[in-house]
Amino acid sequence: MDLWFSERHTKDVKLSIKVKKQIFSLESAYQRIDIFDSEEFGRFLTLDGVMMLTERDEFIYHEMITHPAFAVKPDIETVLVIGAGDGGVARELVKYPQVKTVDLVEIDGEVIEACKKYLPQTATGLENPKVNIHINDGLKYIRKCKTAYDLIIVDSTDPLGPGEVLFTREFYYNCVNALTENGILINQHESPFYKGDSDSMQKTFRKLSEVFAKVNVFQAHIPTYPSGHWLFGFSSKTLHPISDLKAEEWNALGIDTKYYNTNLHTGAFCLPTYVVELLKNAKK
Amino acid sequence: MDLWFSERHTKDVKLSIKVKKQIFSLESAYQRIDIFDSEEFGRFLTLDGVMMLTERDEFIYHEMITHPAFAVKPDIETVLVIGAGDGGVARELVKYPQVKTVDLVEIDGEVIEACKKYLPQTATGLENPKVNIHINDGLKYIRKCKTAYDLIIVDSTDPLGPGEVLFTREFYYNCVNALTENGILINQHESPFYKGDSDSMQKTFRKLSEVFAKVNVFQAHIPTYPSGHWLFGFSSKTLHPISDLKAEEWNALGIDTKYYNTNLHTGAFCLPTYVVELLKNAKK
Repeated sequence: MDLWFSERHTKDVKLSIKVKKQIFSLESAYQRIDIFDSEEFGRFLTLDGVMMLTERDEFIYHEMITHPAFAVKPDIETVLVIGAGDGGVARELVKYPQVKTVDLVEIDGEVIEACKKYLPQTATGLENPKVNIHINDGLKYIRKCKTAYDLIIVDSTDPLGPGEVLFTREFYYNCVNALTENGILINQHESPFYKGDSDSMQKTFRKLSEVFAKVNVFQAHIPTYPSGHWLFGFSSKTLHPISDLKAEEWNALGIDTKYYNTNLHTGAFCLPTYVVELLKNAKK
Repeated sequence: MDLWFSERHTKDVKLSIKVKKQIFSLESAYQRIDIFDSEEFGRFLTLDGVMMLTERDEFIYHEMITHPAFAVKPDIETVLVIGAGDGGVARELVKYPQVKTVDLVEIDGEVIEACKKYLPQTATGLENPKVNIHINDGLKYIRKCKTAYDLIIVDSTDPLGPGEVLFTREFYYNCVNALTENGILINQHESPFYKGDSDSMQKTFRKLSEVFAKVNVFQAHIPTYPSGHWLFGFSSKTLHPISDLKAEEWNALGIDTKYYNTNLHTGAFCLPTYVVELLKNAKK
């Protein structure tokens, strides 16, 4: 049988993956959730037809959204994760014994249920006793939040649909207030390549730069995301991802990774000229 | 009309680009040459159905295969380019006034003719008086070559069909002999991600490492190549791409680039852990 999943990366570009079988499909209150099985990528999760993760390359995204913060601030104890119902971020976080609490705020409980059932590779992170799951809207949660977190990770969908509020100034202001003095915000920052994505990237960067003293962008190669060139934001009131890097300390922790290393950490912040210019122009 | 070009990146993954119109098609003595026009990527060239370049993202490949060598050895005067009939590498090379001669050896004269006619953005490099075009097999040319080059760039297709000889030990040995003492070989080094590509990458790295004292691999984000994660090799008898980097000297040259910069140069050699391991295992 010839069954293909296709995602339009723009109206004129699509990436297609041959599917062995559809494993799950549900219209939740927020979005359409689908899980497929494939030869090349193993199982993969899509929300409203947009690729969230595949078993084959999710390590790249989940390592890169998690570990850079720890290499700059190895004493992170309290973490807030917005989105990330698949459990991949939580799985990476609980590799650190010093992490005491992970509050994971996912708007769609159905995503969590589906991942627990069909994506054990990432959902393993959800089972850890340090991880408290809150089924709630990220903005509503953070507005009322009294905890001071050392790290906030925003693992959102694109700025459309349920993920949209996670790209607003109000949300970022609330993040500042919910962080400790040396706290770090990491967010998925879209892609610089295709026009629609790079517009979102510029908007996100502008808003973050209004709120945080230090905003730096880093990149990773994620084969199943549009253009394969994906960005993350590293924002803090006090810490700089390179000048405050504690490479030796992080390496002494002995964390097992397949993509991230402290050499790559430094390299990931070295951006192509056209991306540097997009970021510069975003502030104008 | 709904006309799509699709390339299989593996048997189960394909990237498709909506085409406005096919502009050129020819079966040459070596391969099938096609040029299409598209909204998203402008014109693009395929050989035997495999993407060679698009007007929208070719700057990434051509800058990354050319400029790193000059930032390590800014006094490069003589250059041999194997393949590269589209002219993109030549266009980048002639940005350097110190470059005196570029010998460009392309096996398929029809590629050159087609690019001159339909891809002026890259073919402009072919018109420069410093560029001498030789229609010849790269291996045959280099076997008899008496010139000593400061730089050899191997801009080959994948190791199948006419590009295959450019991935052999014999070819690399001949490159060593055709280089000056501090000469540099840069070659496209395939991708680390999909199994077929990463097998080729490991083979290439092993062979180069048998022949050159120093072989280092660097990466770039190329959206239209398989996985978007592409590698290049930097090989030399004497020079190391990072410890011998002359960033200030290169920046003083004022070369105009859209992707490459000397900060990115350093970052491009910082590889993900799984790629570092693939390279380590390649030598075993």
